Amino acid sequence: MTKQEIIAQIQLKKSFLCIGLDVDLDKIPAHLLELEDPIFEFNKQIIDATHHLAVAYKPNTAFYEAYGIKGWKSLEKTIKYLNEKHPEIFTIADAKRGDIGNTSTMYAKAFFNDLEFDSVTVAPYMGSDSVEPFLAFEEKFTILLALTSNTGGLDFQGLNVGNSKLYKEVLKKSLTWKNSKQLMYVVGATKAEYFKEIRKIVPNHFLLVPGIGAQGGNLQDVCKYGLNKEVGLLINSSRGIIYAGKGDDFAEKAKEKAIELQQQMEVILNNM
Amino acid sequence: MTKQEIIAQIQLKKSFLCIGLDVDLDKIPAHLLELEDPIFEFNKQIIDATHHLAVAYKPNTAFYEAYGIKGWKSLEKTIKYLNEKHPEIFTIADAKRGDIGNTSTMYAKAFFNDLEFDSVTVAPYMGSDSVEPFLAFEEKFTILLALTSNTGGLDFQGLNVGNSKLYKEVLKKSLTWKNSKQLMYVVGATKAEYFKEIRKIVPNHFLLVPGIGAQGGNLQDVCKYGLNKEVGLLINSSRGIIYAGKGDDFAEKAKEKAIELQQQMEVILNNM
Repeated sequence: MTKQEIIAQIQLKKSFLCIGLDVDLDKIPAHLLELEDPIFEFNKQIIDATHHLAVAYKPNTAFYEAYGIKGWKSLEKTIKYLNEKHPEIFTIADAKRGDIGNTSTMYAKAFFNDLEFDSVTVAPYMGSDSVEPFLAFEEKFTILLALTSNTGGLDFQGLNVGNSKLYKEVLKKSLTWKNSKQLMYVVGATKAEYFKEIRKIVPNHFLLVPGIGAQGGNLQDVCKYGLNKEVGLLINSSRGIIYAGKGDDFAEKAKEKAIELQQQMEVILNNM
Repeated sequence: MTKQEIIAQIQLKKSFLCIGLDVDLDKIPAHLLELEDPIFEFNKQIIDATHHLAVAYKPNTAFYEAYGIKGWKSLEKTIKYLNEKHPEIFTIADAKRGDIGNTSTMYAKAFFNDLEFDSVTVAPYMGSDSVEPFLAFEEKFTILLALTSNTGGLDFQGLNVGNSKLYKEVLKKSLTWKNSKQLMYVVGATKAEYFKEIRKIVPNHFLLVPGIGAQGGNLQDVCKYGLNKEVGLLINSSRGIIYAGKGDDFAEKAKEKAIELQQQMEVILNNM
């Protein structure tokens, strides 16, 4: 998928919403547990109810790996369903991978070729040759962890490096990598004030923003500092949407939450 | 598995060798490709030929994920075979995972409970609450990336942080985490001179050392600075051992390479 196709989707749907498919069998409606593949069934109903409101879906691989082979089958079915039914949707494997060169290529193959995701999240700690193998794949995006929304996020990301901070050095350095135009960045919404600084370093790249809703981030604050002329933001909500309801009408409840966010986004887009 | 059990293995086998099971279908002997599960068959023969020479095995998950569900089945069969046939062996899922708290718990469950590995490698970039969920599992080890052996390893790990370096800050900070005694660290062999500094910060923890052989690290140099009174090192070799031969006798060739390293280790242990 190209950046222009993502932007076209945003304009069409008046939304830059990404829905996180972090499916926990302990949290989904009980009636689904009787089915052969409760995780896929849950995802399918969420997707059917919300695909016109979201431009991206982001399964976090941890939630699938936790169920072993069965979980991987659910992940395969989910991405296949998305690609066949809604090829316009931008798909993100939230896997936070990264390894030495030849091994990163194996991960890239797993997510880009085998599962056919449009993008994958990658951790920067191992440096250039752990990320560039992902960037070598055409029309695929590599979403690099920059500033994460968890409480320990600043433990290392916030360390002073000269006059700068580690996460800023990650941003700067990454721009020197081959095919760096295929990068996006994870920037947590709980730190809206940081977006101003981040946009000075990466004015044109898309930012994937978790932390809206359950983790306390504010959409308007993020947009104030994070939007660029191509929108440049994908705002993720996982638990806040997919677990909005617990009964038979869970997909309807999820849709209601997605509409709330989409409508706020429409106002923001109309005011750009 | 406890640390004392690992040390007992080392003393018994006169070896602190870890064998990396990074199985690439393009590199294994052609005759195996006709079998139903070539990856597992390759691993089984390597394990059968070398288990008396090695104290640990380390499949890198990337090589399994690259083959989708089939690859995960091979990984499951490999770890099951190790646990049933050689329960004394320390097993490492080289997965380099890490995510926000509740999600890291899902990864920990995947590798510790579902697959029953003794340990998993974890990336530090997301900080304390991305690692502590792994440390909460009893008698399991969390192997934190500190200083990696790849060419881009120093891109960020080597950055100056005050009077220190990022990788040293990772080591120091990690010691403050809950259950930090269940930590080990990845330290690349290609930087033997760094071990002296590292041992000042973590004198008692085990270090998992990749980069011997194919990546150019030297065993004697690493031991000179890295050994502690409990040995405290697991030296990994992957390609140098498992791809030593390409024919029907690949396992025999792997064994010969493993013997070479084990004998060098025996000399080192006898001189401690």
